[in-house]
Amino acid sequence: MNLHEQMQQIGKQAREAAKVLARARSNLKNEALEAIAQALEQQHEQLLAANAKDLEAGKTKGLDSALLDRLALNESRIAGMIEGLRQIIALPDPIGEISNLKYRPSGIQVGKMRVPLGVVGIIYESRPNVTADAAALCLKSGNATILRGGSEVIHSNQAIASCIQAGLTAVGLPSTAVQVIETTDRAAVGKLIRMSKYVDVIIPRGGKGLIERVTDEARVPVIKHLHGICHTYIDDKANIEKAIAVAYNAKTQRYGTCNTMETLLVAEGIAAEVLPPLAEKYQAAGVELRGCPATKALLNNIKTVTNEDWETEYLAPILSIRIVADLEAAMAHISEYSSQHTESIITEDWSSARRFLNEVDSSSVMVNASTRFADGFEYGLGAEIGISTDKIHARGPVGLEGLTSQKFIVLGDGHIRE
Amino acid sequence: MNLHEQMQQIGKQAREAAKVLARARSNLKNEALEAIAQALEQQHEQLLAANAKDLEAGKTKGLDSALLDRLALNESRIAGMIEGLRQIIALPDPIGEISNLKYRPSGIQVGKMRVPLGVVGIIYESRPNVTADAAALCLKSGNATILRGGSEVIHSNQAIASCIQAGLTAVGLPSTAVQVIETTDRAAVGKLIRMSKYVDVIIPRGGKGLIERVTDEARVPVIKHLHGICHTYIDDKANIEKAIAVAYNAKTQRYGTCNTMETLLVAEGIAAEVLPPLAEKYQAAGVELRGCPATKALLNNIKTVTNEDWETEYLAPILSIRIVADLEAAMAHISEYSSQHTESIITEDWSSARRFLNEVDSSSVMVNASTRFADGFEYGLGAEIGISTDKIHARGPVGLEGLTSQKFIVLGDGHIRE
Repeated sequence: MNLHEQMQQIGKQAREAAKVLARARSNLKNEALEAIAQALEQQHEQLLAANAKDLEAGKTKGLDSALLDRLALNESRIAGMIEGLRQIIALPDPIGEISNLKYRPSGIQVGKMRVPLGVVGIIYESRPNVTADAAALCLKSGNATILRGGSEVIHSNQAIASCIQAGLTAVGLPSTAVQVIETTDRAAVGKLIRMSKYVDVIIPRGGKGLIERVTDEARVPVIKHLHGICHTYIDDKANIEKAIAVAYNAKTQRYGTCNTMETLLVAEGIAAEVLPPLAEKYQAAGVELRGCPATKALLNNIKTVTNEDWETEYLAPILSIRIVADLEAAMAHISEYSSQHTESIITEDWSSARRFLNEVDSSSVMVNASTRFADGFEYGLGAEIGISTDKIHARGPVGLEGLTSQKFIVLGDGHIRE
Repeated sequence: MNLHEQMQQIGKQAREAAKVLARARSNLKNEALEAIAQALEQQHEQLLAANAKDLEAGKTKGLDSALLDRLALNESRIAGMIEGLRQIIALPDPIGEISNLKYRPSGIQVGKMRVPLGVVGIIYESRPNVTADAAALCLKSGNATILRGGSEVIHSNQAIASCIQAGLTAVGLPSTAVQVIETTDRAAVGKLIRMSKYVDVIIPRGGKGLIERVTDEARVPVIKHLHGICHTYIDDKANIEKAIAVAYNAKTQRYGTCNTMETLLVAEGIAAEVLPPLAEKYQAAGVELRGCPATKALLNNIKTVTNEDWETEYLAPILSIRIVADLEAAMAHISEYSSQHTESIITEDWSSARRFLNEVDSSSVMVNASTRFADGFEYGLGAEIGISTDKIHARGPVGLEGLTSQKFIVLGDGHIRE
């Protein structure tokens, strides 16, 4: 079989498995997840051995140590995967939920029923735990999955996949409900994202290069997460203590995440009061500050911010700071530079909070809270398959519900249209 | 300005206008819609004159009379457009609705706020009333619109657009909130569907050729409506009277609509009882019947159905009929041939109804009701911009809500992530 035929076969199998999954009872899906968790427990030595092969190959290829660390599995990371599966078991099943069933003047009842999307293709880089996470979320939401991981963890992914398939067959579900593409041929991705007959949505998880390639070439709808250039705006009516606590947390609680603040905007009326003590805290934590001229006039020893900084997702202990005239100017800056991921205002002023909530066009908009809260667990979604910066279908953290759709149902008793 | 620059300018203007519309109060949007309705009333003579030009050109080009009829405006069709606008005024404004605002264990409140999509591009063929309908639905849901109609009604569309722009400016909204592409250069469509910086979603309305071209070339998400190959299945536990009434209505109430039944499936246990009287009614109405061998054994003077028939949207008084063993066989036929638009089961049997509702994967699934009900007005959406056969974002009739998205909002009081 050539690559095209292989991919078509994977697609057909996924489409068939999706029909079985769509009508699988919750109990059965949960039993499959538990069986997968147990297989991961039992086969943890095989997982570590497969991962060791990948790490060895990575070292030979000269991958840097930060990347190798991301690729590595160990007992605690395997335990984390298993814990993740059990959390998904505990989530309510979204499938079949009927909402808004109402009588219409004609006498028919019309409502919506939540249904799976069908076949979800996930293309991801590096961390092998995504294999288990993504498969579990798709399984719980009644979707078949086609996974394509990075070539640098191919052995780890195959070992995890074999646990998943063992769990599926143990409860009588088709093993093709979760398929891992085994070839490392890059052309397989090109095929996958164009098989609109067999794939209902593609979720790319990875760097900007991957996501741009997928968006550009896909003929299947894409739920994408580009990047997070998140802003915090300290309004001139902010409470100083809250402002310092929240702005410090938004930058320093973790540097490498997409919901980390990259730019701090400060109203000029409060800058002299809030910036010096805040800057001291940042600098004590080793955060490099880059400021606009007005910021530099208030703070010593900081770099000058450039236009490029406003557009940069640092994912590092670096923060851009701009002093702005007022709320209007802050929202204009956000509108120009934000990646529409997450923005927060710190204020005690009712009407500024209300305007910020209504007018800022990002997937999460916050008042007096750290941008670091923008996350599926913190939002109560249970787990997330990604954070969408799209506007269509799902915005923000995408959990089980984001992997579903709603069809209309109509109940009558011989009703005809006049 | 070349075409590329023209389209970029239209895009930029739409993006700017979208910001104003997103925060426009309901009252203002309704006043604009009323002003548009009045402009259409006042300028009805100009509309008719512009339309006469299009019809004249159409005749010269040799367009057939059915098409010319679809393109034609008259007093009653203009009144219909105006009535449509007033119905949209009466609908509740979806924008700003906050749902599911709940406290999380961390102390933050998390909910969702309904927001416009931003800029909607609509590409449509023939009927000029779409210009007013589509612009009104987008305006009410806070979206800016870029409209590209068929070249055969360009004068009519421009006349309607000038009424829309008069209405917008009368209430102080930017006239660029609704823009009609004036060039008939086909390359303009290619530009529009690739301007992901300025366009958030594309809705193509028209024939299969248009929709396939748009889907294939777009770099912007598409909400598409392909075609309607709708099925009615008469179960062996059907009530004969209801079955005859519903199946007759689903085919004959209107022939040219996408929710018209194209294939009738009948359980073999009930075929001899239900098909002869039903066929008599169809034949009296002039419907040509095409049957499988088992159907032909029951009915006289009907054609033999071919595999191609199962895949054909007739939009005409033609019906394919197949006798199937049971529910399972009916659902297998639907799964193979349906366009996933609308399917209905006629049965008094609880468990068959339940299985059909759960397992049939179409945008509308019905029990004991005519497929002709699959429509935004009948469902209570007020009006529809189309019927989506996609699974992502919106399935089935797309009304105001389908033109919106939801962002997360987070309310705290100095909350930080531990």
